Amino acid sequence: MEDKAQIQEAIKTQGEVVRKLKSEKASKEQIDEEVAKLLQLKAQLGGDDGKHQFVLKTAKGTRDYNPKQMAIREKVFNTIIGCFKRHGAETIDTPVFELKETLTGKYGEDSKLIYDLKDQGGELLSLRYDLTVPFARYLAMNKITNIKRYHIAKVYRRDNPAMTRGRYREFYQCDFDIAGQYDAMIPDAECLKIVHEILSELDLGDFRIKVNDRRILDGMFAVCGVPDDKFRTICSTVDKLDKLPWEEVKKEMVNEKGLSEEAADQIGEYVSMQGGMDLAERLLQDQKMSQSKQACAGLSDIKLLFSYLQLFQVTDKVVFDLSLARGLDYYTGIIYEAVLTQAGVAPVTTDAQNGAPSEESVSVGSVAGGGRYDGLVGMFDPKGRKVPCVGVSIGIERVFSIMEQKAEASAEKVRTTEVQVMVASAQKNLLEEKLKLITELWNAGIKAEVMYKKNPKLLSQLQHCEESGIPLVAILGEQELKDGVVKLRVVATREEVDISRADLIGEIRRRTSEA
Amino acid sequence: MEDKAQIQEAIKTQGEVVRKLKSEKASKEQIDEEVAKLLQLKAQLGGDDGKHQFVLKTAKGTRDYNPKQMAIREKVFNTIIGCFKRHGAETIDTPVFELKETLTGKYGEDSKLIYDLKDQGGELLSLRYDLTVPFARYLAMNKITNIKRYHIAKVYRRDNPAMTRGRYREFYQCDFDIAGQYDAMIPDAECLKIVHEILSELDLGDFRIKVNDRRILDGMFAVCGVPDDKFRTICSTVDKLDKLPWEEVKKEMVNEKGLSEEAADQIGEYVSMQGGMDLAERLLQDQKMSQSKQACAGLSDIKLLFSYLQLFQVTDKVVFDLSLARGLDYYTGIIYEAVLTQAGVAPVTTDAQNGAPSEESVSVGSVAGGGRYDGLVGMFDPKGRKVPCVGVSIGIERVFSIMEQKAEASAEKVRTTEVQVMVASAQKNLLEEKLKLITELWNAGIKAEVMYKKNPKLLSQLQHCEESGIPLVAILGEQELKDGVVKLRVVATREEVDISRADLIGEIRRRTSEA
Repeated sequence: MEDKAQIQEAIKTQGEVVRKLKSEKASKEQIDEEVAKLLQLKAQLGGDDGKHQFVLKTAKGTRDYNPKQMAIREKVFNTIIGCFKRHGAETIDTPVFELKETLTGKYGEDSKLIYDLKDQGGELLSLRYDLTVPFARYLAMNKITNIKRYHIAKVYRRDNPAMTRGRYREFYQCDFDIAGQYDAMIPDAECLKIVHEILSELDLGDFRIKVNDRRILDGMFAVCGVPDDKFRTICSTVDKLDKLPWEEVKKEMVNEKGLSEEAADQIGEYVSMQGGMDLAERLLQDQKMSQSKQACAGLSDIKLLFSYLQLFQVTDKVVFDLSLARGLDYYTGIIYEAVLTQAGVAPVTTDAQNGAPSEESVSVGSVAGGGRYDGLVGMFDPKGRKVPCVGVSIGIERVFSIMEQKAEASAEKVRTTEVQVMVASAQKNLLEEKLKLITELWNAGIKAEVMYKKNPKLLSQLQHCEESGIPLVAILGEQELKDGVVKLRVVATREEVDISRADLIGEIRRRTSEA
Repeated sequence: MEDKAQIQEAIKTQGEVVRKLKSEKASKEQIDEEVAKLLQLKAQLGGDDGKHQFVLKTAKGTRDYNPKQMAIREKVFNTIIGCFKRHGAETIDTPVFELKETLTGKYGEDSKLIYDLKDQGGELLSLRYDLTVPFARYLAMNKITNIKRYHIAKVYRRDNPAMTRGRYREFYQCDFDIAGQYDAMIPDAECLKIVHEILSELDLGDFRIKVNDRRILDGMFAVCGVPDDKFRTICSTVDKLDKLPWEEVKKEMVNEKGLSEEAADQIGEYVSMQGGMDLAERLLQDQKMSQSKQACAGLSDIKLLFSYLQLFQVTDKVVFDLSLARGLDYYTGIIYEAVLTQAGVAPVTTDAQNGAPSEESVSVGSVAGGGRYDGLVGMFDPKGRKVPCVGVSIGIERVFSIMEQKAEASAEKVRTTEVQVMVASAQKNLLEEKLKLITELWNAGIKAEVMYKKNPKLLSQLQHCEESGIPLVAILGEQELKDGVVKLRVVATREEVDISRADLIGEIRRRTSEA
């Protein structure tokens, strides 16, 4: 426990901070934060031993997962990992914190959202903000020039919950990336195939995968007369098209970003275009667009991409959409984003969108996103050697929340254990016999439970089965012991049948195998 | 990127810190840490853009897991989780950081090892130090009075790597706990059964599970004449018996802790005792020991425990050992620790012991530990309501390192993917046909890979199979396409056989099923 005087000193200082903020008429939010800290300090001081003065909560923006949520999470992970493995991916893991400088200069403005560790002597550390930068650091550090890996882990962002309701500060990312110097668009197409497979298998309702290319965007900006130094800022305005109507977006371009009305209108024409390979072909012939070498390179790659997507049988869901911009700076080529189109299944709320496409501005309904980033690894290599990469991030938190809603709506109960059989008795003084039997079952690999009471009531044993969805009960009694049998009860039907001890394990397996 | 002037200022300040430490002749370690920080700041400043001046490393005391390590880790986790599920456990997850006050006052002296987050406005946060305290917080917060749960996650300790070589600052814990008011020793016995099952299945070599009871230790101290206020400190000296000979331990008791020689000798007699139920019976008759009510309660429970362990068929490995003390304050009853006894398999090094029994003083070879802690949840409950708990923590990092050594020593290669078949071609211009075929395979759930090159050499395709242990190759050529077949090659034997396209999926499944 910290020194009391020290805490009292801290309370005094913190009190002054709060008073100062109030006198300065700081934002309510800022004052609330500092008041919370003050209350926390006071709680820490507590009574004589400070024992019952705890604020009993998890940190702001974080949550526990209860067993039911974990069961859903496990199911979703199994589907996703199954897909990654089907495509031959390995997995790696990196520490939850990195040297602060590893993250420095990678996230632009969002760097302010990085959690730093306190300087307790030694290195300056920060919690990881995503899995992509640690991946790039890993490749450069180990001089790995090609790998196909997935990584599922938590990342941390000091996002402001007041601003972005429902977002978490700790959330999962679920990334698949292919690093290596390969022929154009083959790994890129596989990433889209993976998104298609995962969203189909998860059965979240209908979806669409939008694709575009950073080079097409840049080329388009150039031919529309956007000055070079405004590419990024205009790009981030375009990125808002999934939430705002064109008129609003145009207003921002012209009034806030100082773009000419003419240039904005030209952009407006392009970003309304959607299509497939045919659109790419048409734009290659487009008088203006064809003037940009960059745009042409991007358009040719889109054509090639679609030819591979046809072979992968996924073109039904993929659309070339010139309005797709995506926020992150590090993309250098193809970019994509998957959105759910069935409003019924995926209600248009802002809940649990974090982690979706690994950046801040997530479109409503977005459940996956990614793109090509050929420059990031080079930022870590002492000689600047590049390793081309393309990857996708599944918006797993959003998927969880949809699956949870579906589970709530469904009549079927979510099981949180896989117990096949409960070892029970109707009579007293049979604990020893039950422990003997359950030992046989455990040793044979059967998932089994027994109550931790010497003489539980049969009813409470049966109730436990109902509640946790255990399908079978193995009931022991004096008579059964004499006869060398066990009474096997099917919970759902209440059917009971005597099974000889020798046949019991086989019978349980037979009745609980998912055939 | 942070402001340059700010970094330069920080470098100046840090330079002074280092100079001051040197002039004060501070420890080399302390100076090294501050110098490292100085170098890091300088690197951050870097050249004009600071781009290639990164220190390319993970944070001190942390590591990446490469795909091979991850494959081993996955195997170990599957075994352990399989056992937990067999015993009907649910799982939960908690955030990686907690309110600082949640951890305050739970770890005694070791609190200095807790990582704090920087105060960036808002709550004061710390990284979790173990999984037990967050579990207790979770139970109290959600008013849960009974649950059987496992939790596998990383915990964080600012341990001094110079003092404890090979220990990590980020490492896994793997905990199974039973919370609830139950009849004595039934859940406790199940925890030992679980340790027995896991260590047997992991096949780490022979092992022994030592058990003792906190009440027996306290009773023993009382009857040997240890003053009440010295129980804890004498207990932690007893805890060193697995590393030091009795003479050394006695010396510490008498010379450092001020215990009388007579009391120490009496303790020395008791702590040399090992046995089973018989020893508990003998001590219940022991003239001195039987004077302590606490000791008698503990001894009766040890007897009961052994009767259940007999039914669970695990007494072959369990020994009642009065020298087992374990460090943590929060244990209130039975305590246990599993050690590997085959020096050959588990070399007596200090490598990767963290996480073992969730406390600092881990005996060499210790791979699991735990005990009963009936008071911890009550510390979080506003009304102090207690929830009795008993649990076990598997020393997973140590298990990983043993499994890694075994893998190194073994002739068998560790596979990092589960790919069943590589889609290949000997001739050029068959990329489209290969993509068509692999789509069929993926859609049928076959794990398959294709090279991301238009025209890879057959040799390099076959080499990739050899290297990553892919057992089959599906080879396409003009002739095969004409005949509607695929040449299926078994990598190990080089046997090749033509299979019709219609039969291919069945054939691959048949040849790669683990029957």
